[in-house]
Amino acid sequence: MTFLGPNAPLIGKPGSRAELDTPALLIDLDAMERNIAAMAAHARAVGVALRPHAKTHKSARIAEMQVAAGALGICCATLGEAEVMAAGGIPGVHITSPQVTPPKIARLMALNAKPHRGVSVVVDHPDNLLALDHAAQEARKPLDVLVDFSAGHARTGAATEEDLAALVRAAVKAEALNFRGIQSYSGNLQHIPIRAERRAKALAQLERLGGMLARLRDAGMDVPIVTGAGTGTFDLDPEARVFTELQVGSYVFMDVDYLRAIKDGRNAPPFETALFVATSIVSVNAPGYVTTDAGLKCFATDGPAPEIAAGAPLGSRYEFFGDEHGKLILAGGAPRPALGACIECVTPHCDPTVNLHDFYHVVRGDTLLDIWPVDARGKR
Amino acid sequence: MTFLGPNAPLIGKPGSRAELDTPALLIDLDAMERNIAAMAAHARAVGVALRPHAKTHKSARIAEMQVAAGALGICCATLGEAEVMAAGGIPGVHITSPQVTPPKIARLMALNAKPHRGVSVVVDHPDNLLALDHAAQEARKPLDVLVDFSAGHARTGAATEEDLAALVRAAVKAEALNFRGIQSYSGNLQHIPIRAERRAKALAQLERLGGMLARLRDAGMDVPIVTGAGTGTFDLDPEARVFTELQVGSYVFMDVDYLRAIKDGRNAPPFETALFVATSIVSVNAPGYVTTDAGLKCFATDGPAPEIAAGAPLGSRYEFFGDEHGKLILAGGAPRPALGACIECVTPHCDPTVNLHDFYHVVRGDTLLDIWPVDARGKR
Repeated sequence: MTFLGPNAPLIGKPGSRAELDTPALLIDLDAMERNIAAMAAHARAVGVALRPHAKTHKSARIAEMQVAAGALGICCATLGEAEVMAAGGIPGVHITSPQVTPPKIARLMALNAKPHRGVSVVVDHPDNLLALDHAAQEARKPLDVLVDFSAGHARTGAATEEDLAALVRAAVKAEALNFRGIQSYSGNLQHIPIRAERRAKALAQLERLGGMLARLRDAGMDVPIVTGAGTGTFDLDPEARVFTELQVGSYVFMDVDYLRAIKDGRNAPPFETALFVATSIVSVNAPGYVTTDAGLKCFATDGPAPEIAAGAPLGSRYEFFGDEHGKLILAGGAPRPALGACIECVTPHCDPTVNLHDFYHVVRGDTLLDIWPVDARGKR
Repeated sequence: MTFLGPNAPLIGKPGSRAELDTPALLIDLDAMERNIAAMAAHARAVGVALRPHAKTHKSARIAEMQVAAGALGICCATLGEAEVMAAGGIPGVHITSPQVTPPKIARLMALNAKPHRGVSVVVDHPDNLLALDHAAQEARKPLDVLVDFSAGHARTGAATEEDLAALVRAAVKAEALNFRGIQSYSGNLQHIPIRAERRAKALAQLERLGGMLARLRDAGMDVPIVTGAGTGTFDLDPEARVFTELQVGSYVFMDVDYLRAIKDGRNAPPFETALFVATSIVSVNAPGYVTTDAGLKCFATDGPAPEIAAGAPLGSRYEFFGDEHGKLILAGGAPRPALGACIECVTPHCDPTVNLHDFYHVVRGDTLLDIWPVDARGKR
């Protein structure tokens, strides 16, 4: 039997949410199910497909739920994630980062050789395209590729329209590659806090991309897939009618950062916080604060601090306090939480926070319903 | 057979260091062996024992090497780390954070019940001391405890001399607890960049601690163990002759942050960088930089950025570029590294960086010698 950590004996026990061995990563299943349903409904309403990003949850189980709600597949940031998703039977596994080194190309060919319902990868350089074509020829199985176009961010992707068009032509001609479409992800837009500014920048980028796509299609290229977008622009991108599918990730969980970015001061955020870390008070000797058992090995440190969700006196706030500890700073006059008391925090940046945990503790109300491994954690 | 990741077939192959599937965490074994020997020699020379901190490496294999070099045991930040170290046969496993919740106390008793060569834990609160005593009575096996005193940092530990003395008296009287000594760790001192300032503050804290210990001993208390200190103060603490043992951790690997803290502008650092991350160039389309495959899921983000160690043109520097990517910024006029080229980086804050990886790729010169799992990664 798979080892599911020290909380496995609590599965199904009423009230067990408050008894968990901590620190523990929690999914509020009701909230996550509503998030998955809400995004699926949005996609149906605007007539766009979903290929949610598994880099957020790294879980074949959650990918299954997204596919059951209508997603046509799943995106992966690493080849290791894709191996886990394909092994879990997830269809339409698309790798959103170029795979260029010989060991990665060998693994990609091994993955593509297995029976599966669709594996694809981006290319952004003619040398890589040639290498993939040669490898796929040797493996005697064609490989689906999308050409990556650099939007805003310029992390990966062809830098100019000329380079994009040349790569598309080369992919179409390549003997063992199937050209499937274009990827353009604007990571830099997702967290712009003001919605109007996010909207203007997203639409400007999409207008440019739309123009390029029109010229490619005018030149006789078939571009079946145009993939991109994220949770921060999920409802903006479809306005432009450029994407055929959205690579949204964080909406399943949300986090401190995204909640800020989604809000524009007038609209309530359309998704709910579904991811928490439960942490216990382990020391109560200092004036004005107590010490928790969740530090920077439990929460991502690349964004804002965690926020308190439940269990602490009003006005308390969390500060990092080293690798294994947090500082719960109490408001003036607030009662001091008891030694051993359990606090739940909204997580900062969800993707790298999840990456620090081996297990999801799936709760409904106050009961631990199940424990799911974070299958693809650490898989490169 | 244990799964050792995609690089397992390269073990023993000459030149394999440059052929690794990346991103990969590397140990330069020669450098680490020298670090372990240098710290052991220092401890012998100044007449202090070593109980190195396993929270840095989370590896029973490395703990074994430290014990073989003379360490009398190992420190652990979490109970989960202690379970892994004890299972690996490491003697003298000391848990440096209070274990206060019912699930943690139950696990601690289970650990203490197993045949072992010494398990101890800190206490910093009378309620926790009572709970441990009751649990140990029920388990019919005495538990070794040290009383934690809050130095500088005030993360855990008794806050005043009166509280410390009361806890020591209670621990001595407790039916099923063996009082073993005092812990006082000054995490806040370790990274003060100027050595003279670090020294003055460390010695002031130790003078205070020494006074308290003298008064405890005058009152008839036997205090066999006084444990604390870190890599940043390894050669300062013994001056005060207060500690019987040092909890040094980072010296095995060193990192960008510690190298800065150890340096005082006149002395060369006494330990060498032994920990690196190998990363490949995966996109080369942008002007002035290239994109690597190691981002904030490979490097800790709570301190300075990684530094380039090898493989990149002179003057290049690393910036974070999202979860899975880094930006290698090239100096003006520098040649652009080839697509797929491998770069090695010195890691930022070593403990949380190690925590992001499943495997150590142990290299000697340019050959991959072995792969060791990061046994205790993610263990709480």
